[in-house]
Amino acid sequence: MKNLQDVLAKIEKLDGSLAAKTQKRLDNLTKPQGSLGKLEDLAKQIVEITQNENPNLKNKVIFTFAGDHGVTQEGVSAFPQEVTTQMVYNFVSGGAAINVLARHVGARVVVADLGIASNLNTTPGVIIKKVKLGTKNMTHTPAMTREEALTAIENGIIIFEQELKNGIDIIGTGEMGIGNTTPSSAIVSAITGEKVSLVTGTGTGISEEALSNKTKIIQKTLDRHKPNPQDAIDVLSKVGGFEIGGLVGVILAATANRIPVVLDGFISGAAALLAYTLEPKTKDYMIASHCSVEQGHKISLDFIGLSPILDLNFRLGEGTGAALSMTIIEASVKILKEMATFESAAVSEKLD
Amino acid sequence: MKNLQDVLAKIEKLDGSLAAKTQKRLDNLTKPQGSLGKLEDLAKQIVEITQNENPNLKNKVIFTFAGDHGVTQEGVSAFPQEVTTQMVYNFVSGGAAINVLARHVGARVVVADLGIASNLNTTPGVIIKKVKLGTKNMTHTPAMTREEALTAIENGIIIFEQELKNGIDIIGTGEMGIGNTTPSSAIVSAITGEKVSLVTGTGTGISEEALSNKTKIIQKTLDRHKPNPQDAIDVLSKVGGFEIGGLVGVILAATANRIPVVLDGFISGAAALLAYTLEPKTKDYMIASHCSVEQGHKISLDFIGLSPILDLNFRLGEGTGAALSMTIIEASVKILKEMATFESAAVSEKLD
Repeated sequence: MKNLQDVLAKIEKLDGSLAAKTQKRLDNLTKPQGSLGKLEDLAKQIVEITQNENPNLKNKVIFTFAGDHGVTQEGVSAFPQEVTTQMVYNFVSGGAAINVLARHVGARVVVADLGIASNLNTTPGVIIKKVKLGTKNMTHTPAMTREEALTAIENGIIIFEQELKNGIDIIGTGEMGIGNTTPSSAIVSAITGEKVSLVTGTGTGISEEALSNKTKIIQKTLDRHKPNPQDAIDVLSKVGGFEIGGLVGVILAATANRIPVVLDGFISGAAALLAYTLEPKTKDYMIASHCSVEQGHKISLDFIGLSPILDLNFRLGEGTGAALSMTIIEASVKILKEMATFESAAVSEKLD
Repeated sequence: MKNLQDVLAKIEKLDGSLAAKTQKRLDNLTKPQGSLGKLEDLAKQIVEITQNENPNLKNKVIFTFAGDHGVTQEGVSAFPQEVTTQMVYNFVSGGAAINVLARHVGARVVVADLGIASNLNTTPGVIIKKVKLGTKNMTHTPAMTREEALTAIENGIIIFEQELKNGIDIIGTGEMGIGNTTPSSAIVSAITGEKVSLVTGTGTGISEEALSNKTKIIQKTLDRHKPNPQDAIDVLSKVGGFEIGGLVGVILAATANRIPVVLDGFISGAAALLAYTLEPKTKDYMIASHCSVEQGHKISLDFIGLSPILDLNFRLGEGTGAALSMTIIEASVKILKEMATFESAAVSEKLD
């Protein structure tokens, strides 16, 4: 699969070449050194990623990918599968949470069908890159073939590259797929080696009894397919989802283009684990937006080595946490670019 | 003092009359119930405060008050006192962190001199409501008289009421005053009863040795003046500051006008403690923006019963944390007002 290999080959390690210079610049601004905490770290990271000393984050794009999951047959979700399709129409008409938050922060939302279980009416505003009409029920057979997993990733790459022509300075990941916390928990357990019970939560709001069933389903699935934690494609094909694969492609393609990647919640975290497994250099390009109520999210972020900016008890997905974080990240580069220095403002420096 | 008593008499207790109705409305929006966590709580709080079911937070105003502190003679700060005045000029020319962040979130900054130690050149953009040319060195004598403390609070009320004519939907508190973490630590210790060593930090960046000196100075001051924790005016006059008193006035006046108050960091937290001591009903109107690196901040917030939205390791003040939080709070009311319902978007509801 040429496209994925090309993208992986293009991903560069951040060399930290601008870190000291940028910190010095931050230290000359009219504030006590380091007093803007994580905002200063974010500004440095954006400079390093973009290799631009005066980065601009005007073009903010959230990729919200949709897909359906055969495993919903096992009663793992609080909502019926048709909601995936209904929510895609809601995204297009601008009524979903991600639309409201993206408008608020000045981001655009790119909605794509990576494999929902229905054929959408021709709707402007949805990119159709469907791998298939939903994954198989992974409890019985792998969710998808290895080839389909690669197609999902490459479709994500294609969608990113198409959108790049419209200008992208920073991306956020987002998704919609009824049942998709189940494959995400399976991915997190497979890759981190953490117990299924510790990475499985109530998703959109199932009962304790249904949670116990969900945990058993995931354990059974992992026992049956034994995904290889070193092989992200194996994990994605056996226990993943098409929208998750698409996000892996977006994360890799953004990274290859030196564009910062803002991760949303638990499902995005699972996609990030797969991207990180394919290429650990991706880590430096990632920014964790928030910590989901889903308990497995923190485990994913810890595994990669990321700490989130926000903690707002979100458990919605769609890119909602990423959207809110983007405006904080944008603030960090404005601090770097717009603040006066001690010299320019004639402010006395710290006493010795 | 008529003005303060009038304002205190006008403060109403929130009666929770719109909470259930607003939660029901949030639950009908196209998302799992409760999945936007703290954003939903914020939306409810704003509705309750404003008694407006469709609140608008367009007019965001940050009050950044400046004052100087006689206690800087004791070497409690890393910066020379002249920086207070220099930073006021920086605020006016738009080069400080608060200017950058306020522009980013669409807030305006109201800068006022409540008692800096110099006479400013007539500068448009600074409101002069100076109580005096800086407080006295509280190590030896009370920082100000009781009458001056009342004047500082009432000046804050006057500034707020003047600005209200330009429209205010939500306020943030902010301050500038070299040395002002020292009176703030003294206030927090006096009111909460917590040990001085537990509420005193390194401020703008003093050494461990200087921190030890600062802690001793505060302890000595409290031992000498014995401020009465039940009497906020006594605490403010003995160990406070003019800009802190001004912020107390702003918090009370905003509350009396049913306008939400976003608290910035440690010094704003000390002002909030004084306002809360004067009238505990103010608590329901307060939103804690972030948790400062200054260790006493969490103690103040816990005492009032507030938990912060952001944790970005800030220790700058000026209103910087309040500014960033305002945009998150504004997002919460947009969610309430702009999202589609299950019915309007034809999305199926949760399974039983």
